[in-house]
Order: sequence, then C-alpha cells, then structure tokens
Amino acid sequence: MNTGKSIEQIIREIVPVDGDWLEKARARTRSLVMPTRALGRLHEIAEQICAIQRTLTPAIGRKAILIMAGDHGVVAEGVSAYPQSVTVEMIRTFLRGGAGINVLARQVGADVAVVDAGIIPDLDPDMSGGDRRLQVCKVGRGTANLARGPAMTRSQAEQCISVGFLAAEKWIKIGVELIGTGDMGIGNTTPSSAIGVVITGADLDRMVGLGTGVDAQGIARKKEAIARGIKINAPDARDGLDVLSKVGGFEIGAIAGCILAGAFYRRPVVVDGLISTAGALIAHTLCPLVAQYMFAAHCSEEPGHRIMLNHLGLVPILDLGMRLGEGSGGAVAMGIMEGAVRVMNEMLTFEEAGVSDKE
Amino acid sequence: MNTGKSIEQIIREIVPVDGDWLEKARARTRSLVMPTRALGRLHEIAEQICAIQRTLTPAIGRKAILIMAGDHGVVAEGVSAYPQSVTVEMIRTFLRGGAGINVLARQVGADVAVVDAGIIPDLDPDMSGGDRRLQVCKVGRGTANLARGPAMTRSQAEQCISVGFLAAEKWIKIGVELIGTGDMGIGNTTPSSAIGVVITGADLDRMVGLGTGVDAQGIARKKEAIARGIKINAPDARDGLDVLSKVGGFEIGAIAGCILAGAFYRRPVVVDGLISTAGALIAHTLCPLVAQYMFAAHCSEEPGHRIMLNHLGLVPILDLGMRLGEGSGGAVAMGIMEGAVRVMNEMLTFEEAGVSDKE
Repeated sequence: MNTGKSIEQIIREIVPVDGDWLEKARARTRSLVMPTRALGRLHEIAEQICAIQRTLTPAIGRKAILIMAGDHGVVAEGVSAYPQSVTVEMIRTFLRGGAGINVLARQVGADVAVVDAGIIPDLDPDMSGGDRRLQVCKVGRGTANLARGPAMTRSQAEQCISVGFLAAEKWIKIGVELIGTGDMGIGNTTPSSAIGVVITGADLDRMVGLGTGVDAQGIARKKEAIARGIKINAPDARDGLDVLSKVGGFEIGAIAGCILAGAFYRRPVVVDGLISTAGALIAHTLCPLVAQYMFAAHCSEEPGHRIMLNHLGLVPILDLGMRLGEGSGGAVAMGIMEGAVRVMNEMLTFEEAGVSDKE
Repeated sequence: MNTGKSIEQIIREIVPVDGDWLEKARARTRSLVMPTRALGRLHEIAEQICAIQRTLTPAIGRKAILIMAGDHGVVAEGVSAYPQSVTVEMIRTFLRGGAGINVLARQVGADVAVVDAGIIPDLDPDMSGGDRRLQVCKVGRGTANLARGPAMTRSQAEQCISVGFLAAEKWIKIGVELIGTGDMGIGNTTPSSAIGVVITGADLDRMVGLGTGVDAQGIARKKEAIARGIKINAPDARDGLDVLSKVGGFEIGAIAGCILAGAFYRRPVVVDGLISTAGALIAHTLCPLVAQYMFAAHCSEEPGHRIMLNHLGLVPILDLGMRLGEGSGGAVAMGIMEGAVRVMNEMLTFEEAGVSDKE
C-alpha cells in the first residue's frame, strides 16, 4: 500500500472510463429480452459500471460506506440547530450500529467505516465492532471559523485529501468494489454551501437551506457567515485546494480524497447528499475525470444540491426528500445499483429466450 | 380459504388504515436519532405500513410479485410494436427466470408468480419451477377488440377481479406480507390508457405514449382505437366494472382484484407502472379505501402514468425512466420499502443513543 502518493501523482494516473466497453455494454443492453432500454436509468448505471470495470459482467461484491467526520469552527456563528457535541455523539452511535446509516447499510449489506478526519474530542479506536470500523487520522481538532479567516492551511487541505484517499484505498485493497461517501460534522452544511457558491458560481440565496433544521434567524446567520467567509478569504474557484482550505472542512476534503481514490483504482463511488457533493466539487476541480466514476445517490432537500449536481453533470438516482447525510442516500442507492448490474449479468437475450423481436 | 366472496362482500369488509397507529408511528419517527424526518419519504412509507399492519414493529418478510397475464383483441388495430405471440413467449421467459422481473425480484428476494388470466395459447402449469409459479385461471382467450365493442362481458369483468383476488389471497395465506403487481399482455398499454382517460377525465393526447415502442403511425392508430372504443362503448366512469368490461383487459381486472385482496387482508401492495395503475384505478373506483394500502413504485415513461397516479393521490417512490412493466418497478421499490421499515425497527432514539437534541 502506497502511503506517499502526492495529489499530483494521483491525478496524473486517473484515466477516462473506457468508451469501447461502454459501447459493448450498450449493445448488450439492446440484446436483452425487453423493449429497447425499457429499464431506463438502470441501464445507464450498469453500462457506466461496465465502462469503469472494463467488463460485460460487472460486479458489485463487497460494499462500504466511508463516513468522514470533522468539526467546524464556523459553528461559533450560530449556524447549526444542534450543539457541536453531537458530532462525537453521533460517531459513537455509528460505532454502536444504531444510526440511520447503519440501518440502511445493513439493508444492502455494506460495511460502515468512520474516519475521524478532525473532530475536536478524542475517540478510542477500540470502539470498532461488528461490521463497523473507526480510523483516527485527525488533520486538526476542528477547522478554524471560515467566517473570520481560512478554515485550514493549504497543507491541511492536502492532508485531509490524503486521509480520504488512504482510507478508501485500504478498503479497495481488501476487496471493496463500491464505495459510498458519508459525512458527520455539526455545522457542515455551511462550508458545503460555501463551496457550492464558489465553485458553481450560483447565488447564495439559491444555495443555502435549513441544514439539520435551523430557524429563520439561523439561516440568516448562515448566509452572513458564508458571504463574509467568501469575501474575506477570496477563494480561487479554479483551485480546489484553495477553496477547500479557505471555506471547506476536514471531512469534506477527506470525501474528495475518497472520490479521487475511486477514480484512481477504477471503482464506482456513490456520492451522498450536500456535504458529499461539496467534496465531489473539490475533487472535480482537481480532476474533472472523477465525474465519470461518480454516481449521485439522491437529490437532497437542501436547495443547493441540485445546482451542485448539475455542475458535475450528475443526475441523482433517487429523489426521496432525504436530508440526513451520513451516507444514507448512498446506501439506499447501492441497492438500485446492484439491481442494475444484475440486469446486465442475468437477463436473457431475445435469442436465448426465443422471444420474437419487434415486427 | 374462501373462494366464494362476491366483490360486494370484499368491498364491504375493507376498512381504512388505523389513524392511531399512524400517529404512534409518527411519534416514533420523531424520537429517532436524526434531524426531524430527515429520511423523508422513507418515514412516510414506514408509517403507512405501521398503520396498515397496526404495529410499531412493521414487518416485510416474504414478498411476491404477481404477474397477471392476458391477451388483447385490440392488437388487430395495429397498436403494438410486438407480435401477440410475445405474450406467451415472455411468460415462458418468466417461468425460466430470465426476464427483467426475475432478475430484479431476485435482487430483493421476492417470489415471482404468473397468473394466466386470459392469454390465447395454452400453457402447461408444470412449467413452474424454483421460486416461480404458474397459475392458469383463464377468463377467456384474449379480450375482444375494444375498438369494435366491449372488451369482455360484465360477468367476465367480475370473474377476472375474482381471479386476481384469489391469486393474491393464496400468497397472503402462506405468509406473503408485501405484494407487487405485475403485468404481461401485448397491446395492454391501449386498454390501460383508455381506462386512464375514462376514469381521470384527462385528454387522450396527454395520456397516450409509445408503449413498448410503437412508431408515430402506431401511436395514431392507438389513439384512434381508444377514442373509438370509448365512443362506441360509452363506459360509465363511476362504475369500475363497466369501465373494465368495456375498455379493459383480463390482466388489468386481475390486478384490480389483487389490490382489493391487499386491502381486504391489510397487506401493503406495491403498484408497478401504467398497466398496474390502470388496475388500481379500477380497484379505486370500486372501493376508494384501497388507495391507503397502495404504494406507487415508480413513475413510468408513459405520459399518462403521472396523471393516473395524481388521481389516486399517490406519489411514486422512484423515477428511473422505466417502462417495462412485468412488475419490475415494484421489485425495485420493494428494496426501498424494506429499508424504510428497517429504519422504524432498528434505529436508536435520541435517548437510547445518548445524543443531544436541538438546542
């Protein structure tokens, strides 16, 4: 396992998905015993996985949800409905197996791993248990307040991308074929929306939503914090590391690293909601090819999410009014992706089934 | 097992879902360790199942997709892209386990049963095998051409509802807790769209789509056949049996019967695409309470489908551009419904998890 790859090295080795395999996969879909492409998006998903894996017999075997966690200095601005202590309390709940993501991951048979990319309190790595794992790789103890200055240094931004890359690499090396990104960090819709505004260029008012359920005054404080953070930090939208360091979060950088690892090792990555998509925007700014390896799990209730997905050219698989984060949308989408892959592998062709084609 | 219930008896015994259990289920959702209702539609699905099953520990154990099959006299009008022989050819494929529905049912662990409600050829019931079952209960050998007169007699309409009811009852009695409706019958988007026009009152042009992929001239013939069928048969939109007999199909009536059985035995029924929803419209016209037991699996590519779902007050779970029928959307939705039920059963509460609630 390489622990020393630089971000430049990683990006240099990411290649486009294979167009020939995509064409072959589409031809196989056409041969299957049904009206042309009658399963809609399921075919697109399966074909993209064929192109990523360079095969007509795509496989989604072992699956893992990687929950990247971090704390956020910007909570000092009163942007969240929950106290900051909830970050670590929720991590303990993930490790006990009792949170939404655990339940939905069990439904699809995915492992759940928590990566402490920079929460404030200390966690005992021995809290791992069952199909759940904790990895402690703190880049810091919470970011600085992005409304008052940069959230982190450029070196920390590089470091959290590396944390995410290595965490995903570890799971890929032991056979995980589909990775779902997840997040935990009280206050993290604020940096995520800030990243959305900077990278997509969309208006702040269209980007900011309720988060975990803040009130009208909280929303106003959140918008003010983002506006101020962008103004005083002046992040360069073309430089993913600059955006991450100025207005991002440790877990958001780790998510970007996780996505880079998927593209580097040619594994599909299912991207969860707003926070994961902010990580995807950072990864995409560093290396636009990553979009070919990403699947958008769902469209969040957060208003900015669709704008961010549009920027990435991704169409969400699900639209269920979810806004939990944790990787929960990704877990649900994994079941759909497995069904899609199964269609490619197991359906008979018109010829095999002896069914007449169109007249 | 009662084989002699009249439709009137069935309808008389269908009761609304339990409002108290719905309230209790909503209270439990509020206690779970996440921002209020952060899993969106998943909560609505789980709460509705709680209300149907009268419990806070809802269960989706054994699942079955019931594919109702029938042939259609209206194919003589040139409304379909495929020859009529494909109906029986596809049934053979279902029984071999090689069609789209088999693959997607395997993904969620659902049984697949085919009910011959009235296809033209004879099938050998011994074709059952593995987790697949064939039941032969022909109401006729294909319907008459609805563009030239009634598709079937009123007595046949009653009979096919009974076929569907008994088929579903059989599975419920052996422990199936979630039923998915499916269909097979070349030409059956034509009667389905006709039912949609009659019952919802929507314009024919907004209702009719490509079906399995007919060309522009085929679409014109399809619209003409539906318009003529409605004109010469003058179905009474308030009388479900009249609509079914005038412009319906045997499998559509059987789907209606299957939905009535779900409501009668208080089992959730997941309704697939256009054809299943036509069956749902018939069932709903006979007994509006059935809507409380139905879950709309997905929104079909057929333009009329959303209009029909609106009429029933149903919001589809998925929107994946599917238009296969067979029950395929229902199979995919079953996985989501199981996840929803698991959230209700397995997530910890704020108190159990020791997580701080909102400030």
